[in-house]
Amino acid sequence: MANFKGHALPGSFFLVFGLWWSVKYPLRYLNSKVKGNCRSNKCYDRLELIEGILKALFSLIGILAEQFVPDGPHMHLVNGEDHSWVKLMNWQHTTMYLFYGISGVVDILTYFPLNLPRGLDRLSLGIAVIVEGLLFYYHVHNRPALDQHIHSLLLIAVFGCAISIMIEVFMRNDIVLELFRASLSILQGTWFWQIGFVLYPLGGAPEWNQTDHDNVMFITMCFCWHYAVALLIMAINYSLVYYCVNRHKKLPVIVDNGLIKINSKKAEVEASLLAGSDEE
Amino acid sequence: MANFKGHALPGSFFLVFGLWWSVKYPLRYLNSKVKGNCRSNKCYDRLELIEGILKALFSLIGILAEQFVPDGPHMHLVNGEDHSWVKLMNWQHTTMYLFYGISGVVDILTYFPLNLPRGLDRLSLGIAVIVEGLLFYYHVHNRPALDQHIHSLLLIAVFGCAISIMIEVFMRNDIVLELFRASLSILQGTWFWQIGFVLYPLGGAPEWNQTDHDNVMFITMCFCWHYAVALLIMAINYSLVYYCVNRHKKLPVIVDNGLIKINSKKAEVEASLLAGSDEE
Amino acid sequence: MANFKGHALPGSFFLVFGLWWSVKYPLRYLNSKVKGNCRSNKCYDRLELIEGILKALFSLIGILAEQFVPDGPHMHLVNGEDHSWVKLMNWQHTTMYLFYGISGVVDILTYFPLNLPRGLDRLSLGIAVIVEGLLFYYHVHNRPALDQHIHSLLLIAVFGCAISIMIEVFMRNDIVLELFRASLSILQGTWFWQIGFVLYPLGGAPEWNQTDHDNVMFITMCFCWHYAVALLIMAINYSLVYYCVNRHKKLPVIVDNGLIKINSKKAEVEASLLAGSDEE
Amino acid sequence: MANFKGHALPGSFFLVFGLWWSVKYPLRYLNSKVKGNCRSNKCYDRLELIEGILKALFSLIGILAEQFVPDGPHMHLVNGEDHSWVKLMNWQHTTMYLFYGISGVVDILTYFPLNLPRGLDRLSLGIAVIVEGLLFYYHVHNRPALDQHIHSLLLIAVFGCAISIMIEVFMRNDIVLELFRASLSILQGTWFWQIGFVLYPLGGAPEWNQTDHDNVMFITMCFCWHYAVALLIMAINYSLVYYCVNRHKKLPVIVDNGLIKINSKKAEVEASLLAGSDEE
Repeated sequence: MANFKGHALPGSFFLVFGLWWSVKYPLRYLNSKVKGNCRSNKCYDRLELIEGILKALFSLIGILAEQFVPDGPHMHLVNGEDHSWVKLMNWQHTTMYLFYGISGVVDILTYFPLNLPRGLDRLSLGIAVIVEGLLFYYHVHNRPALDQHIHSLLLIAVFGCAISIMIEVFMRNDIVLELFRASLSILQGTWFWQIGFVLYPLGGAPEWNQTDHDNVMFITMCFCWHYAVALLIMAINYSLVYYCVNRHKKLPVIVDNGLIKINSKKAEVEASLLAGSDEE
Repeated sequence: MANFKGHALPGSFFLVFGLWWSVKYPLRYLNSKVKGNCRSNKCYDRLELIEGILKALFSLIGILAEQFVPDGPHMHLVNGEDHSWVKLMNWQHTTMYLFYGISGVVDILTYFPLNLPRGLDRLSLGIAVIVEGLLFYYHVHNRPALDQHIHSLLLIAVFGCAISIMIEVFMRNDIVLELFRASLSILQGTWFWQIGFVLYPLGGAPEWNQTDHDNVMFITMCFCWHYAVALLIMAINYSLVYYCVNRHKKLPVIVDNGLIKINSKKAEVEASLLAGSDEE
Repeated sequence: MANFKGHALPGSFFLVFGLWWSVKYPLRYLNSKVKGNCRSNKCYDRLELIEGILKALFSLIGILAEQFVPDGPHMHLVNGEDHSWVKLMNWQHTTMYLFYGISGVVDILTYFPLNLPRGLDRLSLGIAVIVEGLLFYYHVHNRPALDQHIHSLLLIAVFGCAISIMIEVFMRNDIVLELFRASLSILQGTWFWQIGFVLYPLGGAPEWNQTDHDNVMFITMCFCWHYAVALLIMAINYSLVYYCVNRHKKLPVIVDNGLIKINSKKAEVEASLLAGSDEE
Repeated sequence: MANFKGHALPGSFFLVFGLWWSVKYPLRYLNSKVKGNCRSNKCYDRLELIEGILKALFSLIGILAEQFVPDGPHMHLVNGEDHSWVKLMNWQHTTMYLFYGISGVVDILTYFPLNLPRGLDRLSLGIAVIVEGLLFYYHVHNRPALDQHIHSLLLIAVFGCAISIMIEVFMRNDIVLELFRASLSILQGTWFWQIGFVLYPLGGAPEWNQTDHDNVMFITMCFCWHYAVALLIMAINYSLVYYCVNRHKKLPVIVDNGLIKINSKKAEVEASLLAGSDEE
């Protein structure tokens, strides 16, 4: 679907996941700073299961949308008459969704007590992102300069995301990496929308001159601004979570003051100890 | 041997090793989860020895096949008459097999108590893969677009494999890396076969149009599908190993129930402890 | 501001930070070798706060300078008449400063007890450097050979710096990485000045022939000399700090000899223990 | 010195260092496996000092040779008459030697008790190798295909070496990395000689056809063979060291059998414990 909707659909998926991660990871991180870990861990495992199910579901929606839109290939790959390929673009997008689907399935399997190696869920997500990048990389040959450039900027977000996820295979639950991934996911999401707006201007808007060098320069800058906005969204979500967690923490103080104070003190001491051991 | 067999031969080697690894590593991983480590470690060392011998043997077969096929160079490098090079393609393949042979020899030496540094076997395998990639990289200049593209996709599998193995030098026995290596090895194997089918169509099949951009696009996608199939094979093998190991585990439960239950409980506790310490 | 001042301004900023780091990090490192850590840590936290404030301030100055110089865009992005972009170069520089500003703000927030994840300050600095590199990379298309070359050398310093900072996210307070970052920062600073001198020769100096291959060769070499000078500056600053710290250490020895001797002995023992544990 | 000697000189330097490392590192590694560490560590520190002095000396010789050969620049950079650059090639080589000289000086300073951060010697060596690679990278523009190709193969050895050394900054005394560095250093050495032979054939030998694609293909393969030979040399040196160290170990067994046996047993147990802890 080389049209506006074909870019808005994956853009929305990435945006939803990015925004969700920008809430989930600060929540887990800040909760673990002020409370114990025991009960909440199970809760986060269940969240990961739901995430996996949603990821698999979104991928299925994407695959069906790409295959069965009116001008889609309807699962035909080769045209019987002249042996030409049928709607390769849609097939490429289907492939992309397929790997995100695999990643979703691995997430789901990780939840069950199958002794799946830790890190396999991150690896499968990383593979899905790399496959996306690979398809996009060979996707834009023989296109106008602006089209190529706007897609190659997307590749920066994609491969940045892939590198970050691959490091997570070995450094699981590192909050900095997780926040970085969330921000790049938001960036991908908004950038897909931007690509849609630039290449397929909505009703009435003027077409972009695809060979004007000034447009190329503006798009580079615009990409950076998207990331600045993504960082702003991350900061806002982090602050909101911070205030929620801290209000939550302070409320019980009214009820039984002493015990909580000790607990929060203990948490602080632990935090400082952890910080101290990091510094060595 | 720039023909179908010249691609099917290395393809089969990679496929055999990939499939074998996709069984061996889950077996070792799942066994270590449910049983103690002591007795089995020796067994795995012996398996690595056999692997090394097979690798060296396969390399020797490859070298001999490349040198002494009827149209091979028969160990002549320079043509005495006009000082031109003799059958450089075969010599390049010979070189590729040579480094896999070196890797096999290092594997064999690692088995014996020679105090060889740990990780040297992985390093030599990594070097062999890099040399393969290097030769392929300079191999495809001045070829049609499709030929170049299909080989450059192979390079992705090759260098992905190389990076993964190089990390294994430092993170030995990491199951995620080993599974990743196995999957990329299967991918290489099936892709070599694919290259053979595309560039040298078997009897009667129509030739591929080497400059059609649609063919290039399809091949990119086809590469991703090969990897999806490789992942599926990995999943099937993992499941089979999982059921074998678990049935094996449950059988003795009938004989002396109590002790095993305690043992399996202990293993679970240990596993959860390990998991817990990872999460910090 | 594609003129001399537009290169001298960021050059000065990088130079100031590089020089400051080349004093701060040896000071902290050498102090921690000869004294205890307790009191000084708070002091270094405060220094980082000041650094953050200065970074944010410098960025603000840069943004205002780029926007409100007489020939600047004055915050206009689109020309109302012919829908063309206004002064994209200045907007690009503004974007660059914006990300350094974000990095400064994160540094400031890290100081306050907001439970911000450790490493986020380094990540945001790394992102700022990458954005700078990204903008420069797409900045120099369609320019003469010398202009392109001199900017692409800058990219080596920029991305070297970015890689180093990204490693610091995970290996905080590693003195080698910090010194490397300081040296690359000085290099960037002096190289910005060099670019200014080469592309916009000051009053009376002859213009450089932008297509002469000898000039390109000289510039490559000149870049290495800049780095040699940066290393020399680092060495001088390190020596100065070393003598200051050691004189400081010896002075109190006169007053109460015994205790200090024990302390310095203890520090030595600790240092050797640390060194020993590194060697494993 | 763009002639045979100009390539043979650095080639010999790299070869000497590579061969020396291929003896030193196995010696230290195997000694530490069979004996205690205490006395020998001081000895190795002194060896590193000698290495540093030799490195600085070799660099000085290289600089003087490049500057003061009859057709050298004799320290003149700009021709006073027509403001052109004087002998830039020699100046580039001088720059290369300069950074190896800096690395040598850092090695020397590391020996003295100046509290120089550990890893700084490796960093400075890594920088020297990167500078070498950088100069070579921009060195070969506008040259015939074979000349470019033969130098770009050198870059693989150079940057492989640089990556390996940069990892050593963080993983000091890792025997696998050190052997890898030694092998790449030998490769660089022999390859410099090969470049000399190919580009400046010695008396009477026929010139190579610089544009023949077969020559390019042969050179790629030849590079791999050089590395195979380098690995063979490493293996021979390792074996020689192994037998020397083990004969040395067995000799005292005749004198006082019991104690040594216990010691060697203890070493074995320790080795197996270390091996076991690696496997987790």
